[in-house]
Amino acid sequence: MAKPTPLSGFPEWLPDGRIVEQHVLDTLRHTFELHGFAGIETRAVEPLDQLLRKGETSKEVYLLSRLQDEDGPEKLDQQQGREKQLGLHFDLTVPFARYVLENAGKLAFPLKRYQIQKVWRGERPQDGRFREFIQADIDVVGAGELPYHFEVEVPLVIAEALGSLAGIGLPPVRILVNNRRVAEGFYRGIGLDDVEGVLRQIDKLDKIGPEKVSGLLVAECGATEDQAKACLALASISGSDVGVIAEVRALAESHGAVTELLETGLGELEALIAAASERAPGVVVADLKIARGLDYYTGSVYETVLVGHEQLGSVCSGGRYDTLASDGRNTYPGVGLSIGVSRLVSRLLSAELVRATRSVPSAVLVAVSSEEERVVSDAVATALRARDIPVEVAPSAAKFGKQIKYADRRGIPFVWFPGTAGEDGVVGADQVKDIRSGEQVDADAATWAPSEADRWPQVVPVP
Amino acid sequence: MAKPTPLSGFPEWLPDGRIVEQHVLDTLRHTFELHGFAGIETRAVEPLDQLLRKGETSKEVYLLSRLQDEDGPEKLDQQQGREKQLGLHFDLTVPFARYVLENAGKLAFPLKRYQIQKVWRGERPQDGRFREFIQADIDVVGAGELPYHFEVEVPLVIAEALGSLAGIGLPPVRILVNNRRVAEGFYRGIGLDDVEGVLRQIDKLDKIGPEKVSGLLVAECGATEDQAKACLALASISGSDVGVIAEVRALAESHGAVTELLETGLGELEALIAAASERAPGVVVADLKIARGLDYYTGSVYETVLVGHEQLGSVCSGGRYDTLASDGRNTYPGVGLSIGVSRLVSRLLSAELVRATRSVPSAVLVAVSSEEERVVSDAVATALRARDIPVEVAPSAAKFGKQIKYADRRGIPFVWFPGTAGEDGVVGADQVKDIRSGEQVDADAATWAPSEADRWPQVVPVP
Repeated sequence: MAKPTPLSGFPEWLPDGRIVEQHVLDTLRHTFELHGFAGIETRAVEPLDQLLRKGETSKEVYLLSRLQDEDGPEKLDQQQGREKQLGLHFDLTVPFARYVLENAGKLAFPLKRYQIQKVWRGERPQDGRFREFIQADIDVVGAGELPYHFEVEVPLVIAEALGSLAGIGLPPVRILVNNRRVAEGFYRGIGLDDVEGVLRQIDKLDKIGPEKVSGLLVAECGATEDQAKACLALASISGSDVGVIAEVRALAESHGAVTELLETGLGELEALIAAASERAPGVVVADLKIARGLDYYTGSVYETVLVGHEQLGSVCSGGRYDTLASDGRNTYPGVGLSIGVSRLVSRLLSAELVRATRSVPSAVLVAVSSEEERVVSDAVATALRARDIPVEVAPSAAKFGKQIKYADRRGIPFVWFPGTAGEDGVVGADQVKDIRSGEQVDADAATWAPSEADRWPQVVPVP
Repeated sequence: MAKPTPLSGFPEWLPDGRIVEQHVLDTLRHTFELHGFAGIETRAVEPLDQLLRKGETSKEVYLLSRLQDEDGPEKLDQQQGREKQLGLHFDLTVPFARYVLENAGKLAFPLKRYQIQKVWRGERPQDGRFREFIQADIDVVGAGELPYHFEVEVPLVIAEALGSLAGIGLPPVRILVNNRRVAEGFYRGIGLDDVEGVLRQIDKLDKIGPEKVSGLLVAECGATEDQAKACLALASISGSDVGVIAEVRALAESHGAVTELLETGLGELEALIAAASERAPGVVVADLKIARGLDYYTGSVYETVLVGHEQLGSVCSGGRYDTLASDGRNTYPGVGLSIGVSRLVSRLLSAELVRATRSVPSAVLVAVSSEEERVVSDAVATALRARDIPVEVAPSAAKFGKQIKYADRRGIPFVWFPGTAGEDGVVGADQVKDIRSGEQVDADAATWAPSEADRWPQVVPVP
């Protein structure tokens, strides 16, 4: 077999890169659980009609077929007469909505859940986009109703989760927030009723600039020059303190555009900014140009950039939706955010911002002096593992220099030498060598331990 | 949207079931890492030619196609002229072999890796088989050579990993081992050269019984009645001490069938049994009928049953293969085992052997006395989380009885009541109530902590 080449868009890491990714995943999970979010995992496939429910063909769903059904799509449960095509999920929101409906009677609402899984999108890989990547989502979902305070809580949990990665070298994040009610209230106040159309154009601001957006507002949304100008003026407002609220209100007043909806939205946005400036100072910024393309958001919307890496795009987005799911009897409103973990980790690794201190879990390599005495080395390893120290035993009884090289190549900091019998038959003490400093001391496997920093591989910033 | 129904063969758990699964995954990972195995994760897809390399069409590979390429299979990297169909991996061995070849220059051998991921097989779900399930694999792979002692080490790591789940109620496991060299040496010694054919029939013993297997050995493998009888006699030998070695040798001698290959195999099997009886007494059993259908095993083979749940089949299987992968220049021999985690967890849950002590991570629910004072409750939650206590804040300022019910429904053991101002304006002490005992005491968020058993959800045996 020839050497295989990587598949474009399907990232994989070497063992030390995976240690970084695993650390990121563990850290996110720990923060989510500290906030009471319960983990769930859904199957990777959904019926195609569910995947396309929102008309999301742009996500380029991967369809599944069975190899042995060469001539047609997968036929599931033929005995039930259901012929459903299956596709791989392209996000974790659609599966979660289905899970909520399927299990509604057994779930307790409001439900706070996190979900960390791979998703697949058959997009053109030349955009630098991944076709397979890990998302880490948190959502809060209510049955019938969901109080506004969750729209404040959810981005603060994300701020804490991403903030707790600062120690390993993740750049600071900035969570940009807006509120659909503010935008809609303002547009309607100035006489523009094609709210979705306007949002779609405003969403292009970063890509094509204000002049072209203005032209599109006039051409596509029936705006006058003045209305287009007002929309751009709103979009230009941003700030991390409640002063932005007054700024928006003043702009609306100058256009005679203060509506009840606008006031509701401003009240919500103010509560979010006020809470955030207390609990995560400087992280949350009101940015009135944040539109989010998806039409199902109804309240707060969020995007997140890495400071200094803004061109990477949003690494965590989401918002409030009044209808995550509905089964006719109940409607389930929700609010959530989704972290693009692979995008984050890929940048951390490719920009060499972080590294793992070694490529294996082992803190200690136990040397083997001869195959006959491997059992002695195994016993040392067992004793150390019993005290939660990760250990491996040398693969062969090579010269000690070669065994030390084995440890060195993997970044294992310690090599352990079991005591050997001298000419007088007396077995000497075990010794352990820190191969970084060269220091070698007597040691007892029943009591010796590495420093906590050396016990497990660490993920650290690259200076 | 109507209430969705589960997809047969695609298991999903409620939040408390997921806590059990996550605990199993965390425990396996921890044991693997203690033994120095490095975690890797491969993409979910492989080129179809790789998936079919071993002729494994019985695994019923799921093929992928892009929704927008309605008329044909996925075309990847058209600019490179490669038209490769992609399929979902059906195990973790094929992707690992490809990963080893692809990254050989950057990996350190022998490589000890674990890999915990979902795999997919489009099998008929009526067999009670899963179409999507989690596997947890460990393998050791060498470049060019791999010493035998790894064939001893790998099942002992598995014994420790599964043994460490005994505390939550996993039944004891029995790892059944055999050695291909013993079987091949014996068959050739008695004059049967269609070794693969004989193994294939012996593999059916548990399903169709010795009489039918004997008939098939005669009909399909050209065995005489005596040869068939000898094969069955070998297959009937089992035991957990080195006495089995003598038993096999005596049988071979009585047939004049002692070969060099047989002796090599017996030496290996003896080393494994001897080490196992020391390091995992009673867990590893030599069972000479273990054949494993796959033709690439060349040394030790392993199967694992849950004692008392033998009809569930093997929950962990594997073996030694001399050629995991080969790129023309190098050959990579390996030995590994794969735990069927979903099968294990499914049995633990459906047989009600284990349960999670609650369905959410939260140890504490902080009550909210009014929406105006939610900020006080948030501050308590923040203080507790800073000391690694998982906490959520009540979703609404309902009557305290209703808030306690919210906690009770989720199994949250503690409800925290922030102190309120009395008529004299003095704020009283915070109180925390253990809702299981009803005991309520003064508490300070800066110092109070639950017992370690209450801090995180526990997974415990069902009495």
